Amino acid sequence: MKIAIMGSGGDAPGMNPAIKRFVEFCFEVGDEPYFIYGGLEGLIDGKIQKASYEDVAGIIHRGGAIIGSSRSKRWYEKRYRDQAYENLQKNGIEAIVVLGGDGSFRALDIFKKEHDVNFIGIPTTIDNDIYGTSLCLGVDTALNTIRDAIDRIRDTASTFSRAFVIETMGRECGYLAAVSAITCGAEVCVIPEVEFNIDVATQILRKELERGRTYLIAIVAEGTKRTAEIAKWCEETLGMETRVTVLGHIQRGGNPTVQDRLLGFGYVVEAIEALHRGEERRVVVYNDGVFSTLPIDDVVQKNYRIPEEILSLLNFID
Amino acid sequence: MKIAIMGSGGDAPGMNPAIKRFVEFCFEVGDEPYFIYGGLEGLIDGKIQKASYEDVAGIIHRGGAIIGSSRSKRWYEKRYRDQAYENLQKNGIEAIVVLGGDGSFRALDIFKKEHDVNFIGIPTTIDNDIYGTSLCLGVDTALNTIRDAIDRIRDTASTFSRAFVIETMGRECGYLAAVSAITCGAEVCVIPEVEFNIDVATQILRKELERGRTYLIAIVAEGTKRTAEIAKWCEETLGMETRVTVLGHIQRGGNPTVQDRLLGFGYVVEAIEALHRGEERRVVVYNDGVFSTLPIDDVVQKNYRIPEEILSLLNFID
Amino acid sequence: MKIAIMGSGGDAPGMNPAIKRFVEFCFEVGDEPYFIYGGLEGLIDGKIQKASYEDVAGIIHRGGAIIGSSRSKRWYEKRYRDQAYENLQKNGIEAIVVLGGDGSFRALDIFKKEHDVNFIGIPTTIDNDIYGTSLCLGVDTALNTIRDAIDRIRDTASTFSRAFVIETMGRECGYLAAVSAITCGAEVCVIPEVEFNIDVATQILRKELERGRTYLIAIVAEGTKRTAEIAKWCEETLGMETRVTVLGHIQRGGNPTVQDRLLGFGYVVEAIEALHRGEERRVVVYNDGVFSTLPIDDVVQKNYRIPEEILSLLNFID
Amino acid sequence: MKIAIMGSGGDAPGMNPAIKRFVEFCFEVGDEPYFIYGGLEGLIDGKIQKASYEDVAGIIHRGGAIIGSSRSKRWYEKRYRDQAYENLQKNGIEAIVVLGGDGSFRALDIFKKEHDVNFIGIPTTIDNDIYGTSLCLGVDTALNTIRDAIDRIRDTASTFSRAFVIETMGRECGYLAAVSAITCGAEVCVIPEVEFNIDVATQILRKELERGRTYLIAIVAEGTKRTAEIAKWCEETLGMETRVTVLGHIQRGGNPTVQDRLLGFGYVVEAIEALHRGEERRVVVYNDGVFSTLPIDDVVQKNYRIPEEILSLLNFID
Repeated sequence: MKIAIMGSGGDAPGMNPAIKRFVEFCFEVGDEPYFIYGGLEGLIDGKIQKASYEDVAGIIHRGGAIIGSSRSKRWYEKRYRDQAYENLQKNGIEAIVVLGGDGSFRALDIFKKEHDVNFIGIPTTIDNDIYGTSLCLGVDTALNTIRDAIDRIRDTASTFSRAFVIETMGRECGYLAAVSAITCGAEVCVIPEVEFNIDVATQILRKELERGRTYLIAIVAEGTKRTAEIAKWCEETLGMETRVTVLGHIQRGGNPTVQDRLLGFGYVVEAIEALHRGEERRVVVYNDGVFSTLPIDDVVQKNYRIPEEILSLLNFID
Repeated sequence: MKIAIMGSGGDAPGMNPAIKRFVEFCFEVGDEPYFIYGGLEGLIDGKIQKASYEDVAGIIHRGGAIIGSSRSKRWYEKRYRDQAYENLQKNGIEAIVVLGGDGSFRALDIFKKEHDVNFIGIPTTIDNDIYGTSLCLGVDTALNTIRDAIDRIRDTASTFSRAFVIETMGRECGYLAAVSAITCGAEVCVIPEVEFNIDVATQILRKELERGRTYLIAIVAEGTKRTAEIAKWCEETLGMETRVTVLGHIQRGGNPTVQDRLLGFGYVVEAIEALHRGEERRVVVYNDGVFSTLPIDDVVQKNYRIPEEILSLLNFID
Repeated sequence: MKIAIMGSGGDAPGMNPAIKRFVEFCFEVGDEPYFIYGGLEGLIDGKIQKASYEDVAGIIHRGGAIIGSSRSKRWYEKRYRDQAYENLQKNGIEAIVVLGGDGSFRALDIFKKEHDVNFIGIPTTIDNDIYGTSLCLGVDTALNTIRDAIDRIRDTASTFSRAFVIETMGRECGYLAAVSAITCGAEVCVIPEVEFNIDVATQILRKELERGRTYLIAIVAEGTKRTAEIAKWCEETLGMETRVTVLGHIQRGGNPTVQDRLLGFGYVVEAIEALHRGEERRVVVYNDGVFSTLPIDDVVQKNYRIPEEILSLLNFID
Repeated sequence: MKIAIMGSGGDAPGMNPAIKRFVEFCFEVGDEPYFIYGGLEGLIDGKIQKASYEDVAGIIHRGGAIIGSSRSKRWYEKRYRDQAYENLQKNGIEAIVVLGGDGSFRALDIFKKEHDVNFIGIPTTIDNDIYGTSLCLGVDTALNTIRDAIDRIRDTASTFSRAFVIETMGRECGYLAAVSAITCGAEVCVIPEVEFNIDVATQILRKELERGRTYLIAIVAEGTKRTAEIAKWCEETLGMETRVTVLGHIQRGGNPTVQDRLLGFGYVVEAIEALHRGEERRVVVYNDGVFSTLPIDDVVQKNYRIPEEILSLLNFID
């Protein structure tokens, strides 16, 4: 089978190990691997090439994705999808493995229904906001990048009496913020999924400050849009000198962790095997240590929810 | 219940997050947490103290273990175990949570049979050589430390025509070496569990060298005791300038990863809950995302085996 | 001589190595080392203790400062300075080595004039904004922290067509931003010392974007207060999807680099030797590899200027 | 002027920033930059190419050298040097900037005398063993890599009673070992330049062990070839469980530090300016913050000596 892999939407660490394994596994099972460079935009513009072992040598430890990625407005005009279809036809490509999120899966689903080009999705985003899978590709690396940042702050926090407000990524999802707060021992965590009772928090923290607390770390998920408000609260209501860090895109970068490399391998192998089993319009998911697939409709219509066992650990001040 | 936690045997990243969660969870469920400092030696010498929130503030990102650990010869003389028993009695401690490996579990089992002090084991070792659990506490951090070392070497490898032989830890177990080889793209991996056919490897690599291969990374598990031999083979048989790195104890250190912090939390909570359920002489295990317990006899009498799905990825040259 | 060391003002990596060397060198030359905990606030409150080898064991690789630091409003009331003086008298302390910035040097100078307590300043700030010294303690670590953040972004930048705006610290000084821009290859650098001609930049970058440039990294010094403006310019004028990172306090943390450890050693030794030479009201400076001292009046009355050889490297777009 | 840059001998972090700046500065001053790929071997084989901005985009944070390096036996046969000369003639190259060590400078000096091809050397080696310069390109990164390794070990050392013996690189030079021992607080440091009095060390350490010392870190320079001996001494004479780490080639890798990037820039600019000044057969050196050049004969005939101020800090046990 001729199979192409492409990135789509936001980038995430772990894409390169996945791409490397894709090429290797295709050769192992007798498929022909192709790269679509530059995501949907590249698909429209015919940036498609046969992949070789050489292409994926020495990429396993690089952040980003050697094949690039993109968001595309043109994709939503039929003539560009027709053009994309012709590009695939020219190369004889029968199926696409797409590293991306909900939006990307939907974009390819339109294409499937229209031109009957099969695809399998691999949930690839540091936001961990995709229904049906416990861990998206890239999340583990992002969590460790955030940890590194918070540990640096914590190291110096004992020197000073200060509040540190750290904004983490995650779009509408508070997973990164919640797990970071739990594992880095933050005192405050504000995420979209849980109401943050600022009055109760004020009461508790004031008591702690009276009893000698000298610093405070607050993690705020970008999805809440409350970073400035929480900083103001620390400064004015709690009376602490306050410093804000917006981690931004450094969370999407960096050398993928071992876990993200293994996850990338596993996701890709399951994707190719699903294609061999004749599955269509599905997304690979990873739960309780096992890879399997779900229908695209399930994945894009339902919302991811942070597991109760994680939310329950947020019982400090929230 | 009065419960004490102790380290025993080799140290591993993740012990401090586990210790922190131990104290917190004890308070949450109404138990009284104690520390035994310095492992079995400290238990004999009565280095036991009530634990408080203050003790575990700001430790979550430290390598090592604030309560220390040790190996003890005295433990195998009854009079010292009697002394240890008295120390526990004096403090009213009813059960021990022990962070360690097989040897530590056995040491406490003798104690249990003799003095009826219950204990629960938490598999804590970077060697990942404990039966019944997929991932011991500390392994994820160690794997990422090894990754960092190999990535540094790889970065420069393209500059030169060289063979790099890297010895990883793991005692009799090749897990660290195998997963590192797979995830870092090493060309050669030598572990105790799989016969390394040096003639076949020579043949394959000579062909690759002729075709233009310019460098070679070989991971050798310490348990094989073949590091020097493999280096000599690279130098003399393959004709490559060869450099050896013995990573040693840096693999046991470092700031625990997010995964090891979560794992530490999970292991400790399951340990305390097992004690509440009245379980005795058991070891907490983690498989397919779920924590549970196994009888100590199962764990110490059976041998850990590297999962087939990992060994199958070693198909490059081994 | 009884000499005390204290931190004052913002914290910086390298304080702990300096503190360690302070204790060791005092003992080597027959002085008695003391710690003032918590900066000027601690001095007022009498938090003064004799220092020992044990106090400084295992601290060399920690961020922050084990003796803490603070800013103090009380200091500017005479009665509190009188109280501070009594605390020093009680302990027989003859001189203070202060790790801090301009403000801290001034604060102690008032004290010197009033109570004749001698002091020597060590320029300690990641902002590198102190006149007379080429490199303040902490700058090298901060630069490498920023480098790490930018490298992560750069790694993924090639995947996407984006502008990344990164705000660095430095108060009124653009040193961190300038050196980071130069050494990390940023396309745009906005600092207080150099006028940023936005029209010229627009022209140049538009041409580059037309010719195929796919991403843009802009470093903005916090002192310019132009982060939001530059982000808006990237988004609206240049038409690039733009992401902002505000690094904030992570720049003040982290394990000190080898250079900052050596610098800490050198600064402290020169400070103690200056006291032995009978120098008063001076600040240790480091230039062209040599440590010496300057009168406090020189240091606090003149402004630091970024060396021309660094500014000249900013010739890309600025 | 047409100027080529090449690597030669062992690789070191900082080569890529130097190469990038070489290309940029050539264009700035109107020279034509060329790359010789693969060191002297490549020069013989004519692997010479005009360099462009595109070649050096996105390389600043990579370890190794994009132009490669090599050691060459063929170089010492005249016919290969003649061939190399023809390759240069064909491209019109008038001078070579060589990133390497003593051996490389000598190799090009033969060439200069024979074919009158001018060259300027840039001291590039983590060993820091080149006469006349205080800091070779790559040393700062290597020191921080070693620091990271030792800090990991130290973090866990407090958990256990152990001796850790760490072998660092440096060929015949003890600089890396000495500075690492000083800045990481090692108890023992064994280098070629200083006699290590094992009897005195035994006496001192035994006393410390009696008084409660629980661990020991010993740094051994590879040039002493005493790693195994020191390990045996720790185990048998001092009676401590001992662990050995041979850091090996990881010291040559890794993302160059800010200092090594700046150093690379400075070295390259001085090299090109020296060529413009008409200097011949010289090596760029860096001392007290200033770049200048020395005649090749001075550099290769005299031996580097570790500064007295560094050796004096080794007064703990050595």
